[in-house]
Amino acid sequence: MSESVEKQFAIGVDYGTNSVRALVVDVADGNEIASSVFEYPSGDQGILLDPKDPNLARQNPADYIEGFYGSVSAALKEASKQSGFDAQRVIGIGVDTTGSTPLPVEENGMPLAMNPQFKENLAAHAWLWKDHTSAAEAAEITSQGQGSEDGYLSKCGGIYSSEWYWSKILHCKRSAPEVFEAAYAWVELADFVPAFITGNLKPETMPRGICAAGHKAMFHDDWGGLPKKSFLQKLDADLLKVSEHYTEQSSTCDQKVGGLTGEVAHKVGLPAGVPVAVGAFDAHMGAVGAGVKPGTLVKIMGTSTCDITVWPLDKPIADIPGVCGIVPGSVLPGMYGLEAGQSAVGDIFNWFVKQLVPEKYSGGGDAHVELTKAAEKLEPGESGLLALDWNNGNRTVLVDPLLSGLIVGQTLHTNAAEVYRALVEATAFGALTIINRFEQYGVEVKEVVNCGGIAEKNPMVMQIYADVCNRPMKISRSAQTCALGAAIFGSVVGGSYPSVPAAQEKMTGTKPTIYQPRKGAVETYAELYKLYMQLHDAFGTGSYTGKIDNVMKDLIAIRTRVAKGNS
Amino acid sequence: MSESVEKQFAIGVDYGTNSVRALVVDVADGNEIASSVFEYPSGDQGILLDPKDPNLARQNPADYIEGFYGSVSAALKEASKQSGFDAQRVIGIGVDTTGSTPLPVEENGMPLAMNPQFKENLAAHAWLWKDHTSAAEAAEITSQGQGSEDGYLSKCGGIYSSEWYWSKILHCKRSAPEVFEAAYAWVELADFVPAFITGNLKPETMPRGICAAGHKAMFHDDWGGLPKKSFLQKLDADLLKVSEHYTEQSSTCDQKVGGLTGEVAHKVGLPAGVPVAVGAFDAHMGAVGAGVKPGTLVKIMGTSTCDITVWPLDKPIADIPGVCGIVPGSVLPGMYGLEAGQSAVGDIFNWFVKQLVPEKYSGGGDAHVELTKAAEKLEPGESGLLALDWNNGNRTVLVDPLLSGLIVGQTLHTNAAEVYRALVEATAFGALTIINRFEQYGVEVKEVVNCGGIAEKNPMVMQIYADVCNRPMKISRSAQTCALGAAIFGSVVGGSYPSVPAAQEKMTGTKPTIYQPRKGAVETYAELYKLYMQLHDAFGTGSYTGKIDNVMKDLIAIRTRVAKGNS
Repeated sequence: MSESVEKQFAIGVDYGTNSVRALVVDVADGNEIASSVFEYPSGDQGILLDPKDPNLARQNPADYIEGFYGSVSAALKEASKQSGFDAQRVIGIGVDTTGSTPLPVEENGMPLAMNPQFKENLAAHAWLWKDHTSAAEAAEITSQGQGSEDGYLSKCGGIYSSEWYWSKILHCKRSAPEVFEAAYAWVELADFVPAFITGNLKPETMPRGICAAGHKAMFHDDWGGLPKKSFLQKLDADLLKVSEHYTEQSSTCDQKVGGLTGEVAHKVGLPAGVPVAVGAFDAHMGAVGAGVKPGTLVKIMGTSTCDITVWPLDKPIADIPGVCGIVPGSVLPGMYGLEAGQSAVGDIFNWFVKQLVPEKYSGGGDAHVELTKAAEKLEPGESGLLALDWNNGNRTVLVDPLLSGLIVGQTLHTNAAEVYRALVEATAFGALTIINRFEQYGVEVKEVVNCGGIAEKNPMVMQIYADVCNRPMKISRSAQTCALGAAIFGSVVGGSYPSVPAAQEKMTGTKPTIYQPRKGAVETYAELYKLYMQLHDAFGTGSYTGKIDNVMKDLIAIRTRVAKGNS
Repeated sequence: MSESVEKQFAIGVDYGTNSVRALVVDVADGNEIASSVFEYPSGDQGILLDPKDPNLARQNPADYIEGFYGSVSAALKEASKQSGFDAQRVIGIGVDTTGSTPLPVEENGMPLAMNPQFKENLAAHAWLWKDHTSAAEAAEITSQGQGSEDGYLSKCGGIYSSEWYWSKILHCKRSAPEVFEAAYAWVELADFVPAFITGNLKPETMPRGICAAGHKAMFHDDWGGLPKKSFLQKLDADLLKVSEHYTEQSSTCDQKVGGLTGEVAHKVGLPAGVPVAVGAFDAHMGAVGAGVKPGTLVKIMGTSTCDITVWPLDKPIADIPGVCGIVPGSVLPGMYGLEAGQSAVGDIFNWFVKQLVPEKYSGGGDAHVELTKAAEKLEPGESGLLALDWNNGNRTVLVDPLLSGLIVGQTLHTNAAEVYRALVEATAFGALTIINRFEQYGVEVKEVVNCGGIAEKNPMVMQIYADVCNRPMKISRSAQTCALGAAIFGSVVGGSYPSVPAAQEKMTGTKPTIYQPRKGAVETYAELYKLYMQLHDAFGTGSYTGKIDNVMKDLIAIRTRVAKGNS
């Protein structure tokens, strides 16, 4: 760390689904000086939709550029009100984005959508992570990958997703050939922004982060980068154009893409040449901002959940079935980055509140708050309910979108607060299943750090997670871990720290409140988890051969026992 | 039938859970001249509750007597406004009641609860059908019955219920020995009312209906009446007192208990001596009022459902596993009466509306109406949902109270109307399972006649039942089939008809609207029913050895196909 008495600052820029946030931090301790949020002006909350196709979700690349200018300049203006801040002492910038969010670009690296000829063509815009138009192509890539000996799917859990790079490009080729034809290359948003602000836009040499490349484009050193030509050709010969205009190497985020161009620097009020780090996905940088290290699992809890941990490159690691990514350097340099997740968590609670909650809870204010008040009075097992958390499919460990929600144990007295708690418990059981899968394959989980809105705001949810997982649940100190993680990379490329872990040591932490598992609850949830796993395996796998006629009876027996214990 | 030009009338008196209804009908055609409802004055809507025990449900026997006077005299007063009516031309009375609703009586046959010494003792009152305090005793009787070679359980589906006669008496012996001690005998409400109004109260000779005796007290000619002394003794030696003060013979409802006593006749405004028929349970007489005959299944649809059919005594019939009663003469003389049922139907819809329906549907008026409006627009399979109808356990064919509700197929978009429809469909699948069980054992179901509030008021429910069961659904012409059935027996004992079927021929019928199965819906529901039966067998039986990992995927495939068909 710099020994100078004058403070130094780094900026993290976090591109979310609906807005971009710029965060100015003190590199000495991660103290958050100022931040500003810029809402994307295009579409519906920043998303371009097609009324005829609910699977389509695109974004206007111009919003990304305007968003950088808008958020960074406003954050700097805010920071300037603080004594001791000086824009001249901003020493580095990091960028994280959603992903896989690829966009077609022209030979000069600029988005095709900014060419007036393609302005109105939705296929020429950025294909947002949650665009699901490419399901058929994903199935095709999965099928071809599973049939090949190349092992391209081994690092992404065995199944290629419709949300990912090649699925989207292949679907563009088929559904909007004029766009595919006009595109010189396809770049991830996480690579585009650092390239744009440093003037490194030429696609063949544009620095590409290993995070996006490794997790979404099947880029892996084991097979020398992108999949072999023969593999891509078999899908569609024209895909070779895309791979030919791809960078040969990929980079970790402690690497510098370049210095801020004079023009960009001028627009936002920074000195030209400020070092900019290689970009990565929001959850990955969020994990860094929450202090991820070997043995620490970071859960980024939002509408869905992303679970990130790391593992030293020099320790043996197996391919872990169902874990969607194992990529060297994707989170921390010198370590495997491991990504898992649940397809819906907050989305399930929001769905329930929107569709099935009576006036009694929704009339007085925030239904989540009212339901939580009633649900937290319940003991584990008291409702007799058990749910599966699959309303949006299952990402880890089943990697299967063709699953659905389930709830069992209803009587004629079951109420909304009981269902709400059962849904929370279901997501906790899903979380435990991911932890267990990591540990079964030798990846230790000694500590769990949670971040995101749910972790911050709902103590009942965190207590249930502690009880179900039988592990203390910690909460990240920062409420903006993604942007903080990006700023950490900015501070490393700016020279304030020799390594990312050294920066994390000073700049990250957890809150004093830690949710500890409670013995009685742990025991009841262990019983309920066995029943959850019976349903999980019976409905979610073809290999379950046991019976399930015990499930309803066991739930009633537990409910009866708990009711007696309470009286 | 009488050839007299002067009209003749019969009265049906229907003792429900909360009130008693008297119905005056024209015996020539069943035309309903007048009716009156008397609400039981005691307790909460007629039910005596114990705040410390939700399983307890008793009734004040004095309400039954007052209820007869109140309802019959009011109905007669109403009838007198009609030209051509004359109370002197009432030729017979029938009575139906809830059951098993036994009450302890003194040696003179009068209710123990009417003795001032026991007025405040809840155990001395009538034990209403839905009193569930005797679960332990029911399990004990079932266990002893299953272990014996006597076959006492063979006529009631193999499991003795906590709602039934002996369970309740045995529980009284154990929990309120002072009441058991003071009771000379125990009589069913269905027997008490006809005995009281005709002055035939002496317990040893009080005419007991085969309906209550056969379905609830294990009374069967195959073993010469009640279970053997050795069986009862093994449960509790003191039970012999009860069997010793029981009638030796039981009677069908075309038999006359006696004539109305002068005192009772005077109180209600009828001539003394009007013949009164042997009593039976409401659903059984309701089936008669809806026209039950061999090949006709009558579904009495309310909070739960009772399914009644009959089968000629001279045709072979097997014991049908899971069918709660097969009793000669319990519905129609000379025929087996077969009783099945679903533990909750309307109760499930009411539960959902009370607990899980948002303001959008509940705010404007009747949530059932609003939900039906939205749900009837859905195609079969469109929601992707499938439910089990077991929120209150399963009466037929699993005879298992320790089961619970289940719903599967939820996405992040599932709405309340979709769930409502899925719950309706679940009850229809349950109904089909009962029909199939009858037919598997040789009892034909050529026609289905529905009665009760749901059948009257909700065409969507009836259409779904027609589509799921692939059978036309007819609706009983009378909205008061139980009371009409009782009046039919009154007309037979009064001499207007030589037999019950002859009376039914003239006095019952169905409405002109018949719900016909629709081809496309039938096909989709056949697919969904296969999935329902997978869940039914996997969760409800120990014998299921198949897989169920197809269920969620098949529901999604059907949903996708239906959505395409709609677009």
